[in-house]
Amino acid sequence: MDIPSTWLRPRAEIIYCAPTQETDDDAIGSSSKFPLGYLIAAHRTQNVVRSCSRWLQDQHYRPWRLHPLKLQPLTPVPSDLEISRAQVAKPVDQLATEIGLLPEELESYGRNKAKVRLSLLDRLHSQPDGKYVLVAGITPTPLGEGKSTVTVGLVQALSAHLKLNSFACLRQPSQGPTFGVKGGAAGGGYAQVIPMEEFNLHLTGDIHAITAANNLVAAAIDARILHEATQSDKALFKRLVPSVNGVRKFSPIQISRLRRLGINKTDPESLTSQEISNFVRLDLDPKKITWQRVVDTNDRFLRKITIGQASTEKGQIRETGFDIAVASEIMAILALADSLEDMKNRLARMVVGTSHSGLPVTAEDLGVSGALAVLMKDAIKPTLMQTLEGTPVFVHAGPFANIAHGNSSVLADKLALKLVGRDGFVVTEAGFGADIGMEKFFNIKCRASGLRPNVVVLVATVRALKMHGGGPHVSAGSPLPREYIDENLSLVAGGCQSNLKKQIQIAQQFGVPVVVALNVFKTDTQAEIDLVCQIARECGAFDALPCNHWAQGGRGSVALAQAVKQAASKPSNFQFLYHSEMPIVEKIRTIAQRVYGADDIDLSLEAQTKIDYYNQQGYGSLPICMAKTHLSLSHMPDKKGAPTGFVLPIRDVRASVGAGFIYPLVGTVSAGTSTTPELWFLNLRESPNYSLNSGAEPLSVKLIHTLNS
Amino acid sequence: MDIPSTWLRPRAEIIYCAPTQETDDDAIGSSSKFPLGYLIAAHRTQNVVRSCSRWLQDQHYRPWRLHPLKLQPLTPVPSDLEISRAQVAKPVDQLATEIGLLPEELESYGRNKAKVRLSLLDRLHSQPDGKYVLVAGITPTPLGEGKSTVTVGLVQALSAHLKLNSFACLRQPSQGPTFGVKGGAAGGGYAQVIPMEEFNLHLTGDIHAITAANNLVAAAIDARILHEATQSDKALFKRLVPSVNGVRKFSPIQISRLRRLGINKTDPESLTSQEISNFVRLDLDPKKITWQRVVDTNDRFLRKITIGQASTEKGQIRETGFDIAVASEIMAILALADSLEDMKNRLARMVVGTSHSGLPVTAEDLGVSGALAVLMKDAIKPTLMQTLEGTPVFVHAGPFANIAHGNSSVLADKLALKLVGRDGFVVTEAGFGADIGMEKFFNIKCRASGLRPNVVVLVATVRALKMHGGGPHVSAGSPLPREYIDENLSLVAGGCQSNLKKQIQIAQQFGVPVVVALNVFKTDTQAEIDLVCQIARECGAFDALPCNHWAQGGRGSVALAQAVKQAASKPSNFQFLYHSEMPIVEKIRTIAQRVYGADDIDLSLEAQTKIDYYNQQGYGSLPICMAKTHLSLSHMPDKKGAPTGFVLPIRDVRASVGAGFIYPLVGTVSAGTSTTPELWFLNLRESPNYSLNSGAEPLSVKLIHTLNS
Repeated sequence: MDIPSTWLRPRAEIIYCAPTQETDDDAIGSSSKFPLGYLIAAHRTQNVVRSCSRWLQDQHYRPWRLHPLKLQPLTPVPSDLEISRAQVAKPVDQLATEIGLLPEELESYGRNKAKVRLSLLDRLHSQPDGKYVLVAGITPTPLGEGKSTVTVGLVQALSAHLKLNSFACLRQPSQGPTFGVKGGAAGGGYAQVIPMEEFNLHLTGDIHAITAANNLVAAAIDARILHEATQSDKALFKRLVPSVNGVRKFSPIQISRLRRLGINKTDPESLTSQEISNFVRLDLDPKKITWQRVVDTNDRFLRKITIGQASTEKGQIRETGFDIAVASEIMAILALADSLEDMKNRLARMVVGTSHSGLPVTAEDLGVSGALAVLMKDAIKPTLMQTLEGTPVFVHAGPFANIAHGNSSVLADKLALKLVGRDGFVVTEAGFGADIGMEKFFNIKCRASGLRPNVVVLVATVRALKMHGGGPHVSAGSPLPREYIDENLSLVAGGCQSNLKKQIQIAQQFGVPVVVALNVFKTDTQAEIDLVCQIARECGAFDALPCNHWAQGGRGSVALAQAVKQAASKPSNFQFLYHSEMPIVEKIRTIAQRVYGADDIDLSLEAQTKIDYYNQQGYGSLPICMAKTHLSLSHMPDKKGAPTGFVLPIRDVRASVGAGFIYPLVGTVSAGTSTTPELWFLNLRESPNYSLNSGAEPLSVKLIHTLNS
Repeated sequence: MDIPSTWLRPRAEIIYCAPTQETDDDAIGSSSKFPLGYLIAAHRTQNVVRSCSRWLQDQHYRPWRLHPLKLQPLTPVPSDLEISRAQVAKPVDQLATEIGLLPEELESYGRNKAKVRLSLLDRLHSQPDGKYVLVAGITPTPLGEGKSTVTVGLVQALSAHLKLNSFACLRQPSQGPTFGVKGGAAGGGYAQVIPMEEFNLHLTGDIHAITAANNLVAAAIDARILHEATQSDKALFKRLVPSVNGVRKFSPIQISRLRRLGINKTDPESLTSQEISNFVRLDLDPKKITWQRVVDTNDRFLRKITIGQASTEKGQIRETGFDIAVASEIMAILALADSLEDMKNRLARMVVGTSHSGLPVTAEDLGVSGALAVLMKDAIKPTLMQTLEGTPVFVHAGPFANIAHGNSSVLADKLALKLVGRDGFVVTEAGFGADIGMEKFFNIKCRASGLRPNVVVLVATVRALKMHGGGPHVSAGSPLPREYIDENLSLVAGGCQSNLKKQIQIAQQFGVPVVVALNVFKTDTQAEIDLVCQIARECGAFDALPCNHWAQGGRGSVALAQAVKQAASKPSNFQFLYHSEMPIVEKIRTIAQRVYGADDIDLSLEAQTKIDYYNQQGYGSLPICMAKTHLSLSHMPDKKGAPTGFVLPIRDVRASVGAGFIYPLVGTVSAGTSTTPELWFLNLRESPNYSLNSGAEPLSVKLIHTLNS
């Protein structure tokens, strides 16, 4: 057995002493007996021993030496913030040591968060992956059905109660909703990521980095149009390829552009004047710029704006808008990249608009792809945090599930699968209903990552099932109608037979066993709970169980954890829903019919034209990322249950070439507005109460009390 | 002698082992002799011993046990990035230990940066402050004269060569210039902060936090105007003071607003309908909103925009603009706050606009002041980094010196002054020429902090002196005329007798000794260098010395360091230039005449009206923060040397009530544009090459090579 020589190198090590007064007093008396030299020698010895034993651990998988944090749930359940603050998180480097990370693989951001270096993937290359569990949901009410809490509760149960290595992989929340109506996204009750304020606020700056990178592209686009409009080919060339000590040299990025133009030259002096013109002029059509600026704030007044109105911009005025930062293509790229190199290439490929002659213009053409990679070089490392029970969580990336693919990052999942090792579990969450988040998880994320899921956990609530069974309208801010508070078995049964059944069937088309997790509310009756579980099993679920993580923490999800463990031991027959080489239209139709239950699709002329253009540009084999409402299986938010007999309208099709998907916009344009309601959400989230007390202050009012501590 | 009982509490300790293969091999053999129990006991003993000795250190000042990093400067001097990357920084927690920080006072952000907790100020409360040194400059060329490199070179000399505890306090650079023409701001040559990419990019997220906070205010302003325009008093009240479980309650922020309105009630049910109306309606005049959005990118197209053009915003369209993020009032507040409480109060006081009835509307009125404090709670902690020679640096805050006061934070200076202790040195930098940055350092920053400076280091270059002596025009991007490359003693003498002499005199008005630091370029001749030093002494400088930190690191600034040490031992007779209770107009006139050399000031009608309004609102005793070009002592950028015989035009006056200053806009409006060139700079920095290769790529092209390491 060879021990890699690198393990013999001593490293900076961190030792934690349990703060007990007793040992401390003892130590005072013995201080003179220990010269420092001995201590250092002994300490180094310990390092080497640790390195060796770690190496052995890597080879022969063993359970973590995780020290769970004790939970003593109170009744009634206090507020999320009270629960979060009542628990003392362990130092993140202690958690890291417990789960087998080496100190040099960790970059701490304060006490409670740390980025994990991607070099871990190389070190654990030969380690077998753990089991891969996806948490998805039935079609939700506008209030959300608790997928995040189920995810966190499940890993608390797996790790702290069943003593199985397990990791939750969550998305970083946008600060828009955090300061809007929705509030934070750290889970809730006794199933949370802590400290919740660090989770919900800046975290380790990834969304800020995305914002900076996205807006650098935007600034470059408009500045470039201005420069091309006001300068000669020669002047542009002199600035693009400046003379440094009398020598002009192309950058690697520029050589890449020359290749795409079919110019195989590397000496700037050798270009003909036509080649110089082709090289310096991107000739962007201002009307065909698809790149928007972004802001991580619910700033509705930026949705549609006119820019360039200062006289210095010489009349280059145009209409554009801001999106919420997590809707940036750069966020989607962060979520799908599987290495730094892959991220760099995807950033370079991003298409920002079209030239007057109809050619796509990329971030690399703009010359900013290097700057983007530099701005994103830390964001690519997932952030380690912990649950209320001291079990590990990765927080990384946070694309929305409607405009983008709605899943946390490929890299976080890959790192976690190696860290849990064989027999361990990684639980990752897909946004919104299974028809959106899960479908994209399978067809886009798993296609990009090469990872294969073992189990789908489908989250349902009695509340949402009653809605699908014909219950009255549910909306945020209004009191729930009585039907949702009193027992009503027929509404529950209706919802199970329609939406729940359909969502189970969708998962089964991918060949993955489904465990239904009923997220129990205090108003649910035993008869309602039993009915849901019974029907779910009848509809083909591997198992169905009520979970009480919100009130009890991991202990309340032990039965779910056991069912997941059992389901994961079955062989999975995973398959994609479509081949990537299928024509774009067929891919869209397949999703519409087999997932949403549509009879057919109806392509607008614009959509058809775009598809032809994308085929011609060579984007035809990209997977499809449907931009559709999350409030119905169909395109009509009010159609609950499992709608049938409808044709799915595709009004436009766009491409995120860097992220690597085509996204059709589903739905028709309503009269009087240029986009449908769900597209508003794609842009900047609607939060009508924004800035009013019920909007901006709840989280901050609570957090403000914590500031002086 | 009592040892405080808290020192007996064992703490998490970090031990570093020197990475020598030899000791490591030794250790392997002896591993079995050391049971772990002994090791832990010994380790704890060591903790206690350390705690006691630290406590002693706090009482009886001793030099740090700083381990400087060795520098071996090369000739010719390599690029800044090559130099930065050739040096291995020590782990930031090792540096922290060397300078007497406790582990619990540190929040690491990766290996090379750490935020320092403000609790340090309490622990070192009784420690005497070190000497306080300000680095300012003569009026610069557009290329900059190297104040940052002088600052870094000086602390390298003081710490690593004279073995005196010393700290540099620098501003965090904006990412706008970083990706624009200017590039980074970490110093240069062998006087730099490392790693330069971490210094120049996101750092620890403070500017991102400011951006988020600033734009939350902006979103709240427009959303509030929309809600007030479309809802009844009752509906607004219901949303602002929502019923939770049947009970309505005011937040502390709302009670504060009620007090300002003269309503001394705390029960929401007891308000009359008139009181409800007064409470819910801020009645902001859209034409009198002074709050702008910000972005940390040089995005010139956002300087003037129209927002609210989507139909959902119901026609509430208005013209506004984006500033560069560091121009936000929140940045000025971060720089001037001296505690979390003080920052919270300043954020609440920020005035965002005026109501139709002429009342100022604050962030607290908008109900977002709590949210702002939460967003800024980590940004208030300074970031610790190191120089190329391993000496400590605080990076904190970065307001521009023209629109704001151009100095790093009060808190960084205060923490550093305690850490260096008596006989130690804190070197802090003020932006642009002494007429701007230094004047504001004294009259605004020192007034806010209560700190008193001991020495001013005035940075000059032969290049800038020749310009002031009548040399030809200098501009970025064009080759330097011959006069600046060949020896020209008469131009040098002219610059010394005009601008240098005047800047020395300005500093002397504040009663602080001046040491002139001539930042030597390789084209400077010995005769030129000698002439500058001679005239500077004749003009009243305590001393004047050439420095070669760029080529040699700290060793090249030892003579400067010795002169600074000597000057600091003299008693300082610091005094403000004006009393805060002097009328606003008199304060402006005093600065114009005694600092800039103007005959008088000329107030526009608008400026006079604003001053009357501010007096009436009770802002009359705020200090003055002149918004003036940095390219001349006067308001005319082309007037070099020491202009006389001019009247300073004040075209408008504004107030940053939260930051705590009145800022007059100096200069007239040029024909054809709505603002003068320097105001463009106040908004978004002009960077004409932006997005072209000479603009966006230089830093990133170099950094990109470091990505894979």
